[in-house]
Amino acid sequence: MKYNFSDVVNRMKPSEIRELNKMASSPGIISLGGGMPSPETFPIKELTEIMEFVMKKNSDLALQYGNTLGINPVREQISKMLEKTEGIKCNMENIIVNSGSQQGLYELGTVLANPGDTVITEEPTYVGAVSAFSANGLKMEGIPVDHNGMKVELLEEKIKKLILEGRKPRFIYVIPTFQNPTGYTMPVERRKVLIEISKKYDVPLVEDNPYGQLRYYGEPVPCIRSMTGGEDVIYLGTFSKVMTPGLRLGYTIAPEPVMEKFNLIKQALDLATNSFSQYVAYEYIKRGIIYKQVELNKQIYRKKRDAIVNALKANMSDISTFSEPDGGMFVWVTVDKNVDTKQMIPLAIKNGVAYVSGQAFTTNGTQKSSMRLNFTFGSVEQLEEGIKRIRKTINESA
Amino acid sequence: MKYNFSDVVNRMKPSEIRELNKMASSPGIISLGGGMPSPETFPIKELTEIMEFVMKKNSDLALQYGNTLGINPVREQISKMLEKTEGIKCNMENIIVNSGSQQGLYELGTVLANPGDTVITEEPTYVGAVSAFSANGLKMEGIPVDHNGMKVELLEEKIKKLILEGRKPRFIYVIPTFQNPTGYTMPVERRKVLIEISKKYDVPLVEDNPYGQLRYYGEPVPCIRSMTGGEDVIYLGTFSKVMTPGLRLGYTIAPEPVMEKFNLIKQALDLATNSFSQYVAYEYIKRGIIYKQVELNKQIYRKKRDAIVNALKANMSDISTFSEPDGGMFVWVTVDKNVDTKQMIPLAIKNGVAYVSGQAFTTNGTQKSSMRLNFTFGSVEQLEEGIKRIRKTINESA
Repeated sequence: MKYNFSDVVNRMKPSEIRELNKMASSPGIISLGGGMPSPETFPIKELTEIMEFVMKKNSDLALQYGNTLGINPVREQISKMLEKTEGIKCNMENIIVNSGSQQGLYELGTVLANPGDTVITEEPTYVGAVSAFSANGLKMEGIPVDHNGMKVELLEEKIKKLILEGRKPRFIYVIPTFQNPTGYTMPVERRKVLIEISKKYDVPLVEDNPYGQLRYYGEPVPCIRSMTGGEDVIYLGTFSKVMTPGLRLGYTIAPEPVMEKFNLIKQALDLATNSFSQYVAYEYIKRGIIYKQVELNKQIYRKKRDAIVNALKANMSDISTFSEPDGGMFVWVTVDKNVDTKQMIPLAIKNGVAYVSGQAFTTNGTQKSSMRLNFTFGSVEQLEEGIKRIRKTINESA
Repeated sequence: MKYNFSDVVNRMKPSEIRELNKMASSPGIISLGGGMPSPETFPIKELTEIMEFVMKKNSDLALQYGNTLGINPVREQISKMLEKTEGIKCNMENIIVNSGSQQGLYELGTVLANPGDTVITEEPTYVGAVSAFSANGLKMEGIPVDHNGMKVELLEEKIKKLILEGRKPRFIYVIPTFQNPTGYTMPVERRKVLIEISKKYDVPLVEDNPYGQLRYYGEPVPCIRSMTGGEDVIYLGTFSKVMTPGLRLGYTIAPEPVMEKFNLIKQALDLATNSFSQYVAYEYIKRGIIYKQVELNKQIYRKKRDAIVNALKANMSDISTFSEPDGGMFVWVTVDKNVDTKQMIPLAIKNGVAYVSGQAFTTNGTQKSSMRLNFTFGSVEQLEEGIKRIRKTINESA
């Protein structure tokens, strides 16, 4: 039998994260690669109680097919939670519950753009967005990021240029808070400019905010969706970082006409999101456990963030620059020397450490001397040892 | 803000099932519309015990991100289960665990075909396949179904014609056992012909088998994947009908090169399937509960199947023909009179009964005088009363 594969999947590159996770799961390897939360943060006792309660009270609904856009009481709880935590005002009718926010990204690429269309991302940007948009056959134009997130002064020029070329972008995708992979946060002034540009050129703005609640230092910056003029922003959120990732729950907030299109594509993708996970999340929010849990997570992750930043200061200051993020899950390291972090991976694995090379977060092969380091999964000791092993690897490869 | 939607979603029609479910959820309506299993069949006690066990023993893994293709011990259990129940021999490396088999259908449409390509389905066929393939921009060519499933003698002619037109089909999609929507089963002779034609013209064969285990009468017919020459058949299965649908678990078996492509698209779609659901399924199979549960389900559904068939005989024999399926979840009714079952829906709802009109299962607007009736969800009394209400509706609309 001959299988002829579609052009779309032939265009996609195998994810480096997948390969890395495989390598990184070997015994003895310290993985700074994946984007996994620490199992220490899983609220096992509370979830066990909730699961028992759900099975006792709502098993007929929690084990049955649910509505395509999500179970209504869950959508209502999400709407209340977002008002409390992010100052977002939205009706439950504007929320779709997804199988993780990765699915939200895929849906967006299907609903707002056709294969061959152009979208704007940050440069570098989240590897899962690259994967979702590539699968939809989209071209990505990256706007470089500095310590204050996307350089919005370059955005307007890029949009003008693309319009002149007949390639008006279909949307702008940003992770403004504790960006993945860099960890940088965009100040409120740039967020205002983003809203203005989006309105001026009629290009929808998509805000991905998986880490917003994980702030370890400094004052919160309002999310764009909550700001004046941000009502039309499409907003992606997730339970993976404030509950657990294994229950695969994310959500997208969008204006009415977009919701109708989400409904259609979600029906085709998987009919509906896991009902049981949704009922668990319902209780998790309603009982207020989520708010206590986030505080615990922050205590755990603050120490780890300090550990990796201090280890970088002690071991890497002389040969690299790195972000010192106020929150989130990642540090972005750019090595001064002419090191290719992708080529260096086999040596790193040999030395017992894994990371994701900068190239994975671009579509144009740049960011060769950078790497993304995760600090939420490993222990403080592993983070410290991992940085030493990275330094050793750089020394050996130079 | 102006949202420009993609051509793909504009090409998709809102699902009639979704609308119907909405209407059918009004109080007093007897729904023969959806494809839902009965909550009576949910193994609540066993699942509650399993969930507690999983949270105690494996919460660190069950709440964490899993591998993209599925958690290995679960894939291994599925492989063992399929050998036992369907006589299918496959390695766990050839299994991907999906968020329901709907996701398997969507993946297929992405991996094996490009937008604009043609695929072959049964006529009528499963509404979710129409939805998934439409979302991928595929053209569907339907081969009519009779009491013995797809008329395979028409298949070869169709393939030859399509090849001449430069539209060689990318795959053939069939539900050979207790077909959705008709309930018909394809005998082994036709299955052999399907394998031959697939090989002769190098067109991959896709076998969807959600209902295979739900046989109430007669001797099992082997699934195509288990037959001589069927090793390359792509096979879709689900836990929705033998465990519960709310946990959203399905799986696809495919040859090695297809698995690589599945891995890529699954990564883009939602990273991985719900880990918790997978660990629950692992215990559910390993403890052998699935086999006992299927026997219980069959007892419950056999009575319901008899109830709806008898009610049809008593109330509808004079004006319609209908299938008398040996298993599955659906009866297909074709009204003799020149009735348009889609136009009749509002009157049916007014009379307190819901069904899915035949048109939903085609892409060419045929099957206008047919309807699909589900018999697994309602009680025996509801099924009997529902058929009376349908007869009343036909009388009033004639």
